[in-house]
Amino acid sequence: MTTIGFIGLGIMGGPMAANLVRAGYDVIGFDLGAERLAKLREDGGRAATSLPEAVGEADIVITMLPDSPDVEAVALGEDGVIAAVKPGTLYIDMSSIAPLTARRVAEAGAAAGVRTLDAPVSGGEPGAIGGTLSIMVGGSDADFEAARPVFEALGKTIVHVGGAGAGQTVKAANQLVVGGTYALVAEALVLLEASGVDGKRGLDVLAGGLAASRILELKRQTMVDREFTPGFRIDLHHKDMGIVQSAARAAEVSLPMAGLVAQLIASARAQGYGTLDHSALLKVIENLSGRSEG
Amino acid sequence: MTTIGFIGLGIMGGPMAANLVRAGYDVIGFDLGAERLAKLREDGGRAATSLPEAVGEADIVITMLPDSPDVEAVALGEDGVIAAVKPGTLYIDMSSIAPLTARRVAEAGAAAGVRTLDAPVSGGEPGAIGGTLSIMVGGSDADFEAARPVFEALGKTIVHVGGAGAGQTVKAANQLVVGGTYALVAEALVLLEASGVDGKRGLDVLAGGLAASRILELKRQTMVDREFTPGFRIDLHHKDMGIVQSAARAAEVSLPMAGLVAQLIASARAQGYGTLDHSALLKVIENLSGRSEG
Amino acid sequence: MTTIGFIGLGIMGGPMAANLVRAGYDVIGFDLGAERLAKLREDGGRAATSLPEAVGEADIVITMLPDSPDVEAVALGEDGVIAAVKPGTLYIDMSSIAPLTARRVAEAGAAAGVRTLDAPVSGGEPGAIGGTLSIMVGGSDADFEAARPVFEALGKTIVHVGGAGAGQTVKAANQLVVGGTYALVAEALVLLEASGVDGKRGLDVLAGGLAASRILELKRQTMVDREFTPGFRIDLHHKDMGIVQSAARAAEVSLPMAGLVAQLIASARAQGYGTLDHSALLKVIENLSGRSEG
Amino acid sequence: MTTIGFIGLGIMGGPMAANLVRAGYDVIGFDLGAERLAKLREDGGRAATSLPEAVGEADIVITMLPDSPDVEAVALGEDGVIAAVKPGTLYIDMSSIAPLTARRVAEAGAAAGVRTLDAPVSGGEPGAIGGTLSIMVGGSDADFEAARPVFEALGKTIVHVGGAGAGQTVKAANQLVVGGTYALVAEALVLLEASGVDGKRGLDVLAGGLAASRILELKRQTMVDREFTPGFRIDLHHKDMGIVQSAARAAEVSLPMAGLVAQLIASARAQGYGTLDHSALLKVIENLSGRSEG
Repeated sequence: MTTIGFIGLGIMGGPMAANLVRAGYDVIGFDLGAERLAKLREDGGRAATSLPEAVGEADIVITMLPDSPDVEAVALGEDGVIAAVKPGTLYIDMSSIAPLTARRVAEAGAAAGVRTLDAPVSGGEPGAIGGTLSIMVGGSDADFEAARPVFEALGKTIVHVGGAGAGQTVKAANQLVVGGTYALVAEALVLLEASGVDGKRGLDVLAGGLAASRILELKRQTMVDREFTPGFRIDLHHKDMGIVQSAARAAEVSLPMAGLVAQLIASARAQGYGTLDHSALLKVIENLSGRSEG
Repeated sequence: MTTIGFIGLGIMGGPMAANLVRAGYDVIGFDLGAERLAKLREDGGRAATSLPEAVGEADIVITMLPDSPDVEAVALGEDGVIAAVKPGTLYIDMSSIAPLTARRVAEAGAAAGVRTLDAPVSGGEPGAIGGTLSIMVGGSDADFEAARPVFEALGKTIVHVGGAGAGQTVKAANQLVVGGTYALVAEALVLLEASGVDGKRGLDVLAGGLAASRILELKRQTMVDREFTPGFRIDLHHKDMGIVQSAARAAEVSLPMAGLVAQLIASARAQGYGTLDHSALLKVIENLSGRSEG
Repeated sequence: MTTIGFIGLGIMGGPMAANLVRAGYDVIGFDLGAERLAKLREDGGRAATSLPEAVGEADIVITMLPDSPDVEAVALGEDGVIAAVKPGTLYIDMSSIAPLTARRVAEAGAAAGVRTLDAPVSGGEPGAIGGTLSIMVGGSDADFEAARPVFEALGKTIVHVGGAGAGQTVKAANQLVVGGTYALVAEALVLLEASGVDGKRGLDVLAGGLAASRILELKRQTMVDREFTPGFRIDLHHKDMGIVQSAARAAEVSLPMAGLVAQLIASARAQGYGTLDHSALLKVIENLSGRSEG
Repeated sequence: MTTIGFIGLGIMGGPMAANLVRAGYDVIGFDLGAERLAKLREDGGRAATSLPEAVGEADIVITMLPDSPDVEAVALGEDGVIAAVKPGTLYIDMSSIAPLTARRVAEAGAAAGVRTLDAPVSGGEPGAIGGTLSIMVGGSDADFEAARPVFEALGKTIVHVGGAGAGQTVKAANQLVVGGTYALVAEALVLLEASGVDGKRGLDVLAGGLAASRILELKRQTMVDREFTPGFRIDLHHKDMGIVQSAARAAEVSLPMAGLVAQLIASARAQGYGTLDHSALLKVIENLSGRSEG
């Protein structure tokens, strides 16, 4: 029986760990939240009292943490994963973090004889619960193949996109296009309505031509209705745009659209829309255009 | 038999007029190009020697012209369409122009007892030849219904989106989203490649999730291959972004994404890519990022 | 005695015409506003009952009008200036308009034997009243020299910057830099205050180094105090940014900063700050950052 | 005699340490570069063989390091400044880093009984050599007063702008305005030249009105001449724009101009202009506008 040490049992990590138990893994988890550990026990896993206890005897370690500094601390810290695991352990970070941090973890792993993968996901809480996440994986072929059964317990679209950090880079590119598309659809809708054209009818036309997108398909009705229940929160997309910018800086490229989208999402958050769905970018464009309703 | 006066027999207008002949209309065309008139005669239409001759006896008049000033001159000029047609004539401008100009034409028409529709299209030359254009129509219900058989001879998606100018507004919104999506996909691709990730594999992942779009579906392979045969030319998209900005100004809205996309497309044109496909926005982002290949 | 036909006796044109009277010119004015004509008579000028009457016998014609379409109508219309003046007349348009329109007027003038200059001003109402305007002049050396005494009655900084349209281009470049500098200072101030730094003290440091500008010198105290009495109104700067964009389009250049500044100023106007000083761009950045005070 | 431990003897730190020796301080320096230590000895200072040796007996410690991570390592690391100094030591970080890092250093200092100031400078290598730097200081009044004699040996404009991190925030605001002003002047110049107007004559007019700035005053001739010898290098300004963005993120504000300026400077660096003066932003705008000369 394969033992998986799982660090970070939050909104995403909690149901992911439960899915691994369900798939027959021996899951030993760690989190600073006592309730989360209790929940893992209920779900059939074991609760460790420290990070080293959770990972020390594991065959595979998974971390699912909020942001790059958390991963740096947990992976690279003095009592962190790399230091605490057995040589040969496969360590998969599934957090969404900066590609540069992912590469740093991979280098530290290589130096310590620990195999590493970066494997961020999309699909949000429903995907975590339903085991239907999309998983973008960076690392070696052999390590990817070794991890495949684990990924199959967690998601349905599993793609090996390249070497160390590549998973995070693809996630960043994805969030850039998603955030930008929301901004474009928001501007289109504001232009239509301010010109006296029925927004829904206009967006219907766009959704039928070269402007078509998954976002227009899934979100145009809720955007027209100003219905912004998440979904994926502005706060998280704001974090992700930070990753996009840091990835662009590391890659030494100039991405003007990304620069602007980042500021628009920062504005959504600064205006108090952080807990709304990312389609609430619409409110930023409305406010810029003096068309807010209160 | 219904007579249609058709002004502007270029790349788009020529095949459209031919389709109308094919559908059984009596088409009498006018254009300053003698070859274009000869082509219409070959296609079974009649060639007028002046604009008033083409429209004076027509039941329906269609104009298909390059830009707003052309429509202003042809529609509103001293010997223009509004002045030259019989009262009650249905005048359909199918050019892509500023919504404001479309509304001005509608007002002049109303004052002169001429019924007007603005009906810009998308689908390009293949759509014009194949009779498969998408047509976005602004104007009254009655006039739209009267024009429907004509539209059905020219296109396959025909949507009445609102009153005078609404067709042009929807076209503008469409071009904003299309241009912006190209820019986003270009930035995603440059970020991927500069980070050492295989561009095609990365875009494949994006095309399978919330970042999915018609553009990713149709164009990601050609963008990865740097294959920029048009399709729809940068020069035309540059013209359209001018319309977007003029529509935004008329609607008194602030559209920062539109402002940036317009400058990126202007850059494509200024750098000599005007006759390439609009996906050549990729070259602008590459050059910004110092990744041009010569 | 030199006769000057003066068209457009508004906030700027009225006091300018009065200064010309004061300088000894025979000024015959025309405007659609009866009160404005009465004011000119009070100031010692003559009031014409039509445009042709005002310009038909003039040695020099000056127009001072709101925007490009006004100049097009007044200069190029059927009974317009070019048509109505004597051959050899010197026609100076002092409105702020698109360089392209200025060049079109120059071409029409050349074709009709009318000498033309474009001579937009800066300095606002106080400059118009005090005769202290800055005047940027495009046209030939000979025509500039002929007009110099007139300019000296109106302004104090008078620069011949190039051929036809050059005056308008320099004015456009000026307004781009001015609008952009306000936006930069606004962002600096919002960053300082939101970081808990005293805004005035921070801007004082900027004003003493490489970030120094006339705007920091004149406006940092009023910006810190949120005192936005014009000065130069957002509405007018919005018009001017339209000219900047049209000039950039005509010159086939890509100006991303101009594109963004134009949208920020459009936002100021859309949010209802059109009659405030252009330093009220600060309110746009504050609102974007969720720091408005109500 | 006051002993100053000085860490970081590079282009800036080297001459600053020499100025402190000249002012009568006992300077004991540390740097990983042996040549730099030798230079300090030549200049009359003492060379330590480790960081703890340099700072352990010092009354005042100064660090002058490239970027935030360097300061984090040197200030907060296990054998770092905070750990190695005597309680009550005054620690002044003069590097340009993220305000957030400066505040973290201040907190760590407070916890350890070490007094801290953040005191970034402007004025570049000539200012460091000549002792004419501008110094922006964040921290308590008492610590600022205690450090004043040291600052007076290094610079001529010394301003206490607020509490911990305030110095770095003001520096960030300064670099935002400076970078943005270069971009605006570059766009103005490209617009002028592409419109056929003499760039120098046009910028002269701007420099005489509301668009005036220190940058127009000092740099318009070199920009017209395409003379880009630094001065202040694009590479350094690129680093500083990273700090601006991180400061904006920490302050939870939305700064669209900053977002765009950062991408334009990133482009300059990506296109290989990193070692040129920051006025070389002009080349980015020229390339965007298809006006590069090879």
